Amino acid sequence: MSRTTITRLSRKGSGERTALDELLDGVHIGHFALVADDAHPVVLPTAIVRDGDRVLVHGSTGSPWLRRLAAGATTSLAVTAFDGLVVARSAFESSMRYRSAVLFGSCRAITDPEDKRRALDTITDGLIPGRSQEVRRSSAKELAAVLVLALPIVEWSLKVSEGWPDDPADDVAGPAWAGVLPVVQHYGDPIPAPDLRASVALPQSVQRITPRARG
Amino acid sequence: MSRTTITRLSRKGSGERTALDELLDGVHIGHFALVADDAHPVVLPTAIVRDGDRVLVHGSTGSPWLRRLAAGATTSLAVTAFDGLVVARSAFESSMRYRSAVLFGSCRAITDPEDKRRALDTITDGLIPGRSQEVRRSSAKELAAVLVLALPIVEWSLKVSEGWPDDPADDVAGPAWAGVLPVVQHYGDPIPAPDLRASVALPQSVQRITPRARG
Repeated sequence: MSRTTITRLSRKGSGERTALDELLDGVHIGHFALVADDAHPVVLPTAIVRDGDRVLVHGSTGSPWLRRLAAGATTSLAVTAFDGLVVARSAFESSMRYRSAVLFGSCRAITDPEDKRRALDTITDGLIPGRSQEVRRSSAKELAAVLVLALPIVEWSLKVSEGWPDDPADDVAGPAWAGVLPVVQHYGDPIPAPDLRASVALPQSVQRITPRARG
Repeated sequence: MSRTTITRLSRKGSGERTALDELLDGVHIGHFALVADDAHPVVLPTAIVRDGDRVLVHGSTGSPWLRRLAAGATTSLAVTAFDGLVVARSAFESSMRYRSAVLFGSCRAITDPEDKRRALDTITDGLIPGRSQEVRRSSAKELAAVLVLALPIVEWSLKVSEGWPDDPADDVAGPAWAGVLPVVQHYGDPIPAPDLRASVALPQSVQRITPRARG
């Protein structure tokens, strides 16, 4: 609950933008907030990939919430990294290390077929760098089944909590432990699909993002 | 983008509720959607802990969005686990393994001092089981500085995507790899606070949730 270690960064300079980009590039899930017709708030988790000064999102043309975003509904997108538990000497001072970005604005649908193809390649490579070069091109039918949206990175704020427990002197002198439990996240060993043919080797793109496969 | 492996579960029986509880207990960050006075959607990331049939949230009494939730604003809470990348033989069929819960309703503020203390202990122990017994009690001043809210688990839906790539026969016969990259997440080695006295040992609660400290 201690807020002393939190920094609010908001369009203050290139360092802050770099921190925002790092967060957007490292976290693959974002949460969009929307307002429904009945004025109720709705939240939509979805994969996100940054492409320069915009965030790309995609999904089925059958998704009502994605269609609402595509129609230009005002939205707010949160991208959050849980970086660690801050274990203080009291429950009150205990907190989390996190980075939290919130973007505001509205999405634009990418409809031009070549732009759409490029955006989908960017999404593929944002999740698995280099993967788009290892798979076949999407068919026209596949492209048509997908909505691709872009949210411009214009209005945003970033909060970063990266500090240590901030216990009062009485507690520091006391018996309780204090420190940080960092969150470790990575991909585990790749699991081949049940129908994978034995002759197909693990591709370079997958090896590169898998610590053990990389050796 | 394949949706064939997605299961929508919604108040269908005890199995689904068990899966919901497992998700809520395993993921420590949730995203609340709210509607602001100007009718714009807002999204608020925050720590969450399940307590039986409700989700607990806490934070500073100075947080305007938490106060809005405390006042009973209609909200929607998403809790999402990113479990793995589903690497198909085409970009189109590639997707994610995830579990995604969305709860609807409004929060109630927990104001009775003893209820509030118990709820805060539940939050502490939800993040680090047993920790509340290792630290001093919160002071009355500390309790007063914190808002504690409960969202009842009544209206909710759960989507679980846990399958394999679902490639058409042409692609299965082709040269591309397919499989799953599971996401591995755990706490790394505890990092003592810079001001930790040398005589204070790592507590059992922290050892229990730290794979390497546990040995």
